[in-house]
Amino acid sequence: MSQSPRSLADIRSLLSGLPYSDGPSVKAAQARNGQLTKPPGALGRLEDVAVWMAGWQRTDRPHADTPQVVIFAGNHGVTAQGISAFPPQVTAQMVANFLAGGAAINQLSRVFGARMDVHALELDQPTADFTQGAAMDEAGFLRAFASGWDAVDPGADLLVTGEMGIGNTTAAAAIAHALCGGTPGEWVGRGTGLDDAGLITKARVVGEAVARHADARGIEVLRSLGGRELAAMAGAILRARHLRIPVLLDGFICTAAAACLDAEAPGALDHCLAGHVSEEPGHACLLDRLGKVPLLSLGLRLGEGSGAALAIGVVQGAVACHSGMATFAEAGVSDG
Amino acid sequence: MSQSPRSLADIRSLLSGLPYSDGPSVKAAQARNGQLTKPPGALGRLEDVAVWMAGWQRTDRPHADTPQVVIFAGNHGVTAQGISAFPPQVTAQMVANFLAGGAAINQLSRVFGARMDVHALELDQPTADFTQGAAMDEAGFLRAFASGWDAVDPGADLLVTGEMGIGNTTAAAAIAHALCGGTPGEWVGRGTGLDDAGLITKARVVGEAVARHADARGIEVLRSLGGRELAAMAGAILRARHLRIPVLLDGFICTAAAACLDAEAPGALDHCLAGHVSEEPGHACLLDRLGKVPLLSLGLRLGEGSGAALAIGVVQGAVACHSGMATFAEAGVSDG
Repeated sequence: MSQSPRSLADIRSLLSGLPYSDGPSVKAAQARNGQLTKPPGALGRLEDVAVWMAGWQRTDRPHADTPQVVIFAGNHGVTAQGISAFPPQVTAQMVANFLAGGAAINQLSRVFGARMDVHALELDQPTADFTQGAAMDEAGFLRAFASGWDAVDPGADLLVTGEMGIGNTTAAAAIAHALCGGTPGEWVGRGTGLDDAGLITKARVVGEAVARHADARGIEVLRSLGGRELAAMAGAILRARHLRIPVLLDGFICTAAAACLDAEAPGALDHCLAGHVSEEPGHACLLDRLGKVPLLSLGLRLGEGSGAALAIGVVQGAVACHSGMATFAEAGVSDG
Repeated sequence: MSQSPRSLADIRSLLSGLPYSDGPSVKAAQARNGQLTKPPGALGRLEDVAVWMAGWQRTDRPHADTPQVVIFAGNHGVTAQGISAFPPQVTAQMVANFLAGGAAINQLSRVFGARMDVHALELDQPTADFTQGAAMDEAGFLRAFASGWDAVDPGADLLVTGEMGIGNTTAAAAIAHALCGGTPGEWVGRGTGLDDAGLITKARVVGEAVARHADARGIEVLRSLGGRELAAMAGAILRARHLRIPVLLDGFICTAAAACLDAEAPGALDHCLAGHVSEEPGHACLLDRLGKVPLLSLGLRLGEGSGAALAIGVVQGAVACHSGMATFAEAGVSDG
């Protein structure tokens, strides 16, 4: 399953034939966890994370030694509506900053030993303004989705997908509103720093966009209201599933893209943990809808994969304890 | 200020002559933070952590490259009261496990590149049962305190103090109850896995102990109701302050020991962040009393410094972003 999908039907077929967590590996890891030199449950969520990693990696000794951070950048026609505090030129400027090693995600990737790749997706051709029509036609959507599919390193043992794209919290809010309902105001936030008037505009734009694409479902929501970097993240997340690579979801934009896979095929995000919960207010609601409890809550709202990259450290701690600790028998410790 | 204190008066003198965070370094770090290639505030709490580190390290480029984890172990006479699910022999068994590299804290120290040291404190001589008298006499308390003072590596740029000691959540609960009031039931938890009857006993024991030592204040609370590993952690935390080394507090026991310094000299823990909040119920209350907001909340209740060690990764991420990111001018990015 290394060929990227060539049609929406291909994507739907990939979503209907998903691999699942390996039961025997989960059982073996649970058994090992119960013998490690600590009171039962004393490592809290780290124990759950290690057992979950074991199930996807089909081993009772999970690892996170070769994490990959992959960043996609895209530009958005909807910026014409005045929904961002920064001009669209910043997308390309930040891609140059990623390539030069100067962004937050470069530092975080280095700290946790992650390979980092950056893919700029047709930045000189913003997607269409989705208040006027679909953000991408089918061919454009498939190109972006395939960029994500092809970007995943099959040798990675943990994946973070990140993004850069001025205007993309508006796309994320529109997707969340389309998938989950409610009112536009529940899903919009200040993004990079919008003022009160901008926030009102953003809610109006989101409401108009979702009304225009009211018939879209699942991955059609992603094509209609997303952007190239969101489509690419979804492609990478689906590829990771077929490669059995666990994923740490980043913030609101990453989670909105991923949620379109879940809307198409419930369970499609079982191989994903929420790395963190962002300050962008829609994120907590969306995670809650997806049944995901974030590992970290530190008020980040940068994107770039930064919150999920920070959570790599938590996963590394979890698997190091699980795979490296002595058992009661090995250490000669009384087990209570 | 490298000589360990020889009397309670020495400790009080060290607590009345504390160094404080360096204002000019904080200002320089705040100025740098405002120029980094991200929207203002987008790294959330990581920005606060980096600026805080800068103030203690007296630089605008804080670092966490040489963290130290130091573990102290002690035995407690109060275990005679049946307040733990594990027998006291486990303290020495776990020290052997630390030395052999088999415990959770060994794995976490390795993941985050921390030097780890273990100090077993007179394990064959448990402290006195504090329901009957003071846990330590003045000489014993000073020996333990000095062990902590001397254990800090002056070359460390971040310190985690951890502990092992069957029965020590009872000591921590007694300290918290003595310092903060309330009822014993508010401060006791299941520790390593106490059953309902054990929990009732533990609350009774804590109530009796605090009533017996009702006149104790500040570090006298630590001497009367603590244990050697708690006194040592307090000694290490005070030494770190004089060396301007930032500290990550671990769980309930570490925080209870530290709280005695704060009770003696408010502000004595300004160089400490709460690494995490433990599942042990008294911990969240105690952190709240100290005005500390934990970095992590992952349901850990192991001790050993494990939660704080996990938070080393967060601090490393914070300082890496602050010290390694490009400014808007350096990267040629429009700043909104």
